[in-house]
Amino acid sequence: MLNVDKQNDTFLYRQVIELITENMDTGTLLPGDRLPSLRKMSKTAGVSIPTVRQAYIELERGRRVESRPQSGFYVRHRAANDIVRPIRTAALKPVPLGCRSLMERVYDGINNPDLVPLGIANPSMAKPAAKTLHRTMKRIMARAEERSLGYASTLGEPSLRRQIAYHYLDTVGAQVEPDEICITNGGQEALLLALTAVASKGDVVAVETPTYHGMLELIDSLGMLAVEVETCPEEGVEISELERTFQNHPVKACMFSTTLGNPLGVTMPGVDRERLVRLLEEYDVALIEDDVYGDLLFDGQRPVPAQFLGSKARILTCGSFSKTAASGYRIGWVVSSHDIDEVARLKRAFSCSSGLLQQLTLAEFLASGDYSRHLKTLRPVLQRNAERMRALVAEHFPAETRTSRPVGGSVLWLELPKKINAQQLFDEAIGAGISIAPGQIFSPCACYKNYIRLSYGHPWTEKTEDAIQWLGQHVSRTSSS
Amino acid sequence: MLNVDKQNDTFLYRQVIELITENMDTGTLLPGDRLPSLRKMSKTAGVSIPTVRQAYIELERGRRVESRPQSGFYVRHRAANDIVRPIRTAALKPVPLGCRSLMERVYDGINNPDLVPLGIANPSMAKPAAKTLHRTMKRIMARAEERSLGYASTLGEPSLRRQIAYHYLDTVGAQVEPDEICITNGGQEALLLALTAVASKGDVVAVETPTYHGMLELIDSLGMLAVEVETCPEEGVEISELERTFQNHPVKACMFSTTLGNPLGVTMPGVDRERLVRLLEEYDVALIEDDVYGDLLFDGQRPVPAQFLGSKARILTCGSFSKTAASGYRIGWVVSSHDIDEVARLKRAFSCSSGLLQQLTLAEFLASGDYSRHLKTLRPVLQRNAERMRALVAEHFPAETRTSRPVGGSVLWLELPKKINAQQLFDEAIGAGISIAPGQIFSPCACYKNYIRLSYGHPWTEKTEDAIQWLGQHVSRTSSS
Repeated sequence: MLNVDKQNDTFLYRQVIELITENMDTGTLLPGDRLPSLRKMSKTAGVSIPTVRQAYIELERGRRVESRPQSGFYVRHRAANDIVRPIRTAALKPVPLGCRSLMERVYDGINNPDLVPLGIANPSMAKPAAKTLHRTMKRIMARAEERSLGYASTLGEPSLRRQIAYHYLDTVGAQVEPDEICITNGGQEALLLALTAVASKGDVVAVETPTYHGMLELIDSLGMLAVEVETCPEEGVEISELERTFQNHPVKACMFSTTLGNPLGVTMPGVDRERLVRLLEEYDVALIEDDVYGDLLFDGQRPVPAQFLGSKARILTCGSFSKTAASGYRIGWVVSSHDIDEVARLKRAFSCSSGLLQQLTLAEFLASGDYSRHLKTLRPVLQRNAERMRALVAEHFPAETRTSRPVGGSVLWLELPKKINAQQLFDEAIGAGISIAPGQIFSPCACYKNYIRLSYGHPWTEKTEDAIQWLGQHVSRTSSS
Repeated sequence: MLNVDKQNDTFLYRQVIELITENMDTGTLLPGDRLPSLRKMSKTAGVSIPTVRQAYIELERGRRVESRPQSGFYVRHRAANDIVRPIRTAALKPVPLGCRSLMERVYDGINNPDLVPLGIANPSMAKPAAKTLHRTMKRIMARAEERSLGYASTLGEPSLRRQIAYHYLDTVGAQVEPDEICITNGGQEALLLALTAVASKGDVVAVETPTYHGMLELIDSLGMLAVEVETCPEEGVEISELERTFQNHPVKACMFSTTLGNPLGVTMPGVDRERLVRLLEEYDVALIEDDVYGDLLFDGQRPVPAQFLGSKARILTCGSFSKTAASGYRIGWVVSSHDIDEVARLKRAFSCSSGLLQQLTLAEFLASGDYSRHLKTLRPVLQRNAERMRALVAEHFPAETRTSRPVGGSVLWLELPKKINAQQLFDEAIGAGISIAPGQIFSPCACYKNYIRLSYGHPWTEKTEDAIQWLGQHVSRTSSS
């Protein structure tokens, strides 16, 4: 594929650059693809290693490729603008929520199998996980035939809680007691139990902006009020803004994603986590820590949840297998040392216990190492999809479009030209057979009017590409008309 | 087995009585067993049919056997006293709930596999259902490999909702729209969603007395207040008392079991259902109708839920497969024509959706007729267990003990001598390896101090008999000391 003409009087490294660029333009090298190693390229092209290195560094400077430590050089998306400036702050006072009907329609779109599913956040799983999970479940049905149809305990199947505790030990070195974990019906019920344990009707809850719409619906349903806190797309919640919010409002609890927040995809740096827990202690505010995407960082390096930073703050961390293994199993959990008894009491009152067969299956899925292996397969697939999607957005959307730059998870957050109304775009996209998530549902005051969230978590097909192209062209037409 | 001595000068019918009695005493004829038909007995014993009939009628008068229309004569329990007088009325004013820690300990007992499980209400299932369910689930995993791991829709899998609608049509002739059904995480989440849809913190909720402890925990957890309404063990809630309650308290909703209430096992007669819905209309009070035991009437004749009586009252009916097929699946539902949108909104906010694999499995389990066949097997097993349990209670408990007389379901309600404290009995029983449900948890003011609930829903073993004997002897000792 690569060949340098030594007779040509252009600098050799420039020729290497041209060869690489040409291959990127024809699609032989796609965004996310690794460039040949320095040694290999040197051999193939018949130039020295320093020449290749110089070419690669030039390409990196021009933002065509990027280097990754101990890994090599990779093709970048072409020109999608990163969202670098902080997202504007939404209302800093408690606001009642008013976008119920839109959320309903978004969910209808998500549940419609005839649409290209760019609206839903959970990654649909690679086939190996489905096969392994089914095989594991069959084994359990054979082994625990009658027992597996019975009730699990309120806190949940002990073997699964032990595995989750071990997973925390293994990935972030945290010591968790299995009895400080309560198994729930997915991450959403984890949020419900955690929030109900620390706040009640009329209380004020601080959220990121933009934030996961499921949190907003929950806060609304419980008769609580949401207050948005300015959130930086690179570092998450602005801690100084949070303190100002605590000073101005009777905040009872925060509901934040510390890792791979949805929709921004932002992960709070360690130093901010430390500042956060100190602030929580000082103002005596509880934290519901949404950590459902923690296992999906592309580089696999899970940051330590705020829960495990050794503070005295009241922190309830919510996890789930819905984004990483099987959303249909409806298995999530709450970790809390302080409030676990109250969480268990609420679990019993709200839904008794969670499905036993799925718990037994997941316990074995984790214990066997199948879960870790599955994550190792899943992450690069997601990363590749993310890069493909950014490349297509750069190609088809108007130049002023800005996107988040995912380092994990399964969603891309787009800022479109100001003229675009995402709710209208949502309706038009449904008409074209595509589901998207309009920006309005990510804020209690329905701002983010010209933002959308796209999911790259589903198997990548031609339909996916066509859908992104359609969206880009449609947005271009609308914004220039 | 039977033989009459015609030379003996005792009346022939008395000899038939003696023969039957002897066979009952030796255990050849057990409580619940059918006596030989008149014709067969006449042939076997060599006496006339009228002689046999006279003997059977005498036995019935002496409460040793009972006749069932179009079915024949059956062996009754020996001497257990029916609860015939209305249970005394508990507090008629709203009361805060205060028996949390006891409920917790009861659940711990329930979840302890080392105890004889007389404390839990759900019948553990007969093996054929487990085998059929597992087989069905395997088929679905093979057929819908990846899809079955994904999210169900908020309202739930359409095929299951259609089957539930058909089941109502088939059993009570009610026309239900599948879109008026929302699938939930078991019956308990159905109660949560239904109650949250119609009432909020501080509201007053009317309950039966005694009533299912799960309702009390739920009401308490949502910051609502329970008011008890006098409940007759033969006919359920006293409608005139209910009207008085409506007049004296700002009741927002009622939470009643109309069929086979737990723990009384009482089913509200049709005429009272009619009076109930008229009263609900008149006072504009909503009804959460708990119908999770509806399929377990021994004679299989399901009464029409209040929901389907054609009134304008706001009624949300809660059903579940936890008591009839697989508690561990955590699949229940809410039926409501008036509030289904609100229920769906809450379902989304509280737990997104319910497990898809279990929904697909149950849909096929119903569609194939396996569910109906399973119920036909299960009901007589439960009935026989109920009769065995009443017989053992009559044999081993003090004479003044009174029991409910189950016509369905899986629990027996016992009134013990006044001296007994059920909470203490609960502790002592745990010590002896037996779990029971103490009366205190069935009322918000912890009355029913000398009542217990025993479950006969588990496979009947020698351990079951030993446990009842131990309880009876222990109660006798305590009450006479």
